[in-house]
Amino acid sequence: MKNLFSLNELTVEKIEYLLDLSEKLTDLSEFENIKKITNDKLVCNLFFEPSTRTHYSFEVAQNRLNMKIISFDSVNSSMQKKETFYDTIKTFDSFSLDLLIIRCSENEFWKQFDCEIQTPIINAGDGTSEHPTQSLLDLLTIKKEFSGFSGLTVGIIGDIVNSRVAHTNIETMQRLGIKVLLSGPLEYIPVLNLNDFPNAEYIPFPEILSKCDVVMMLRIQHERHLHKCCLEKSEYNKNYGLNSKNFSLLKRNAIIMHPGPVNRGIEITDELVECEKSRIFEQMKNGVFVRMAVICYLLSKI
Amino acid sequence: MKNLFSLNELTVEKIEYLLDLSEKLTDLSEFENIKKITNDKLVCNLFFEPSTRTHYSFEVAQNRLNMKIISFDSVNSSMQKKETFYDTIKTFDSFSLDLLIIRCSENEFWKQFDCEIQTPIINAGDGTSEHPTQSLLDLLTIKKEFSGFSGLTVGIIGDIVNSRVAHTNIETMQRLGIKVLLSGPLEYIPVLNLNDFPNAEYIPFPEILSKCDVVMMLRIQHERHLHKCCLEKSEYNKNYGLNSKNFSLLKRNAIIMHPGPVNRGIEITDELVECEKSRIFEQMKNGVFVRMAVICYLLSKI
Amino acid sequence: MKNLFSLNELTVEKIEYLLDLSEKLTDLSEFENIKKITNDKLVCNLFFEPSTRTHYSFEVAQNRLNMKIISFDSVNSSMQKKETFYDTIKTFDSFSLDLLIIRCSENEFWKQFDCEIQTPIINAGDGTSEHPTQSLLDLLTIKKEFSGFSGLTVGIIGDIVNSRVAHTNIETMQRLGIKVLLSGPLEYIPVLNLNDFPNAEYIPFPEILSKCDVVMMLRIQHERHLHKCCLEKSEYNKNYGLNSKNFSLLKRNAIIMHPGPVNRGIEITDELVECEKSRIFEQMKNGVFVRMAVICYLLSKI
Repeated sequence: MKNLFSLNELTVEKIEYLLDLSEKLTDLSEFENIKKITNDKLVCNLFFEPSTRTHYSFEVAQNRLNMKIISFDSVNSSMQKKETFYDTIKTFDSFSLDLLIIRCSENEFWKQFDCEIQTPIINAGDGTSEHPTQSLLDLLTIKKEFSGFSGLTVGIIGDIVNSRVAHTNIETMQRLGIKVLLSGPLEYIPVLNLNDFPNAEYIPFPEILSKCDVVMMLRIQHERHLHKCCLEKSEYNKNYGLNSKNFSLLKRNAIIMHPGPVNRGIEITDELVECEKSRIFEQMKNGVFVRMAVICYLLSKI
Repeated sequence: MKNLFSLNELTVEKIEYLLDLSEKLTDLSEFENIKKITNDKLVCNLFFEPSTRTHYSFEVAQNRLNMKIISFDSVNSSMQKKETFYDTIKTFDSFSLDLLIIRCSENEFWKQFDCEIQTPIINAGDGTSEHPTQSLLDLLTIKKEFSGFSGLTVGIIGDIVNSRVAHTNIETMQRLGIKVLLSGPLEYIPVLNLNDFPNAEYIPFPEILSKCDVVMMLRIQHERHLHKCCLEKSEYNKNYGLNSKNFSLLKRNAIIMHPGPVNRGIEITDELVECEKSRIFEQMKNGVFVRMAVICYLLSKI
Repeated sequence: MKNLFSLNELTVEKIEYLLDLSEKLTDLSEFENIKKITNDKLVCNLFFEPSTRTHYSFEVAQNRLNMKIISFDSVNSSMQKKETFYDTIKTFDSFSLDLLIIRCSENEFWKQFDCEIQTPIINAGDGTSEHPTQSLLDLLTIKKEFSGFSGLTVGIIGDIVNSRVAHTNIETMQRLGIKVLLSGPLEYIPVLNLNDFPNAEYIPFPEILSKCDVVMMLRIQHERHLHKCCLEKSEYNKNYGLNSKNFSLLKRNAIIMHPGPVNRGIEITDELVECEKSRIFEQMKNGVFVRMAVICYLLSKI
């Protein structure tokens, strides 16, 4: 495999292989062996949208794999002189690097290139469409918690229509045998969207909370909403967010996840972000290993 | 020691040990030995306020110590999506790095973390409060000039109330046996402040100039002043700045220091910035060695 | 040689040596040998103007040469506190680095330093004055195409008055025996400018197209024009740009070059940017090797 654009391109077996590899990479001896593949390879991280978790966990992964790293800064680049995304990527392709990591606001950005880009590409989030490495780290977090996927129920709650994380997760989780439930304000889950995911059932909030092994809260993506959110901050939390009141509805072994950044007090109240059931910072930790695994996988050219 | 937040945490002996180590690090053979401690360690520099000297001398130090370096860029981070300083630091802590270098505008930023951050932290300047590595490089510059501290008089002149450099220096210098004098516009040195430093005497300008072995001019921190400076640029220099007229008042062996960036023509006139008595660029050079020493010290976990 | 400010400083023999070295650096075995010179050397890239091709091909070159790299980010630096270009460069000079790469908007920026900067400097473009490494990569592209320079005719077309690329190329190409023709809107090629280059002949557009082995289109530098361009986008292309209509005027073996970023649809229509005659992305590829060669040359201190 040369590129990773979408998890749709991976069989269930490949996804499980990547999750296994991610777990193994926490073991240094295994890791030294794999580092030969990535040693001194030159990667450029091109983030055309703001990012902390994804961008820097990629950089941590690349450093641990002993790669050489270039960080593209669009603010000080020729994009200030109106150079396009297309020409920027073509420029980096002409440099004969070993790998490009790309995040941008355009859905399926790779489809605009007539002839294929020579350099391998990992999609680090394209618009509202896909976020394959985020989905893998979510899966790794779930797998580590429950030692597998079959029989599990995941509830995805909130701004689903704008969430590339949700889009990638819904489909991939169902392929892995997970039952997916959706909830949140109806204007964030249009009918169209439900049609896209015929196997994902809508459950009103807070009823959904008692039905899930994993409660995945999504960030309200204010920056992608054309209109202001219909609800005030505290109103949103009361109706669709986790708080000390509805927390008691959760199953005894349920865990709380969130792709971050958390709007504290909206999707989740402050004190719950770091509560015992929360795996939010564990997700970030797992992100490093998943990205190491994906990079190794692509560069080993299996 | 795990973190360096304030020089108050260090005994006089520890401070002198760090200054000695800084001097030794200019010698490459000693240096190779120490590099084993820091080799391939992964550090992230998180500067939430503008910086040239501190930021890049840390990067030079880290490169010379053969560390792997990540530079956090808040402008292109999830802080654009309103993620807080707290969650940003927690995110980097979840990545299991070896060291964080943090500058931010909040005084004593580390006190907001309920449970301690796992990753070691070096304070690279917190608001108007402390700047331990700047103080160490000032001390190294003085030590190299006068071969010690006892019997010396240092005059700190200018915007003391807003200067974390001054706050750290006044206290540390007194502990090392240096006599500290203060001068500058009275609105920059409120009574409250003098009470904080009972052993630091106020001397009117320019009388102070003839009394000091070290004249340390402070930058007017326009960005921290709520009101415009009461004085025009040239007026300030005439009343509280160094210029060719009052330069003759300096002792024969006195040196001029400034933490930078210099507002040329305000604290010091242009031609004096690079005069023979100036150690301003020498301070920057010493900053690299002091930061190497502090990093070695923390990572060796003594 | 310590610095590279202008190609005027290099004899024709030195230029040819650098082009030969650039070609050799594509061969890895040769390259390993040369890497000893640059291994672990510490460079800082200081770009005070936006850049993609130059900035990142320097970073790629430095990575391939196994150097340690610091990227200065003026937006988050003390320049926000009004520190000058002069003091910023002096600061980096005080750090005792091995090399500085500098791009800035001031013509002949190096002349403002009274006493010489200790650290070697490569000029990565100064205002509208010079761009030596761009000129070298243009020459390398031409040399690879035509196996030499003598007897060739290069047409430089467009915003010549603002183009440091043109300034460096016109003079250097003539020294190498290339015949240089100029074309474009007359307000972009003032008489004064033609006087500067007495051997460069002005040929009206599109007549120039049939006379050249190399057609070098220049970017309209909107950001340097005080007044709006006198012509609309489509008008400019019709009168002074390459398009499917005048493309047929080109010689059979002629190639198209452009320093980038291309204003697609203005200097060249979209479909011609990646046509068979275009060497635009080949130029970017060559930029890496030329910059490797220049760095090796300076650091070997021949």
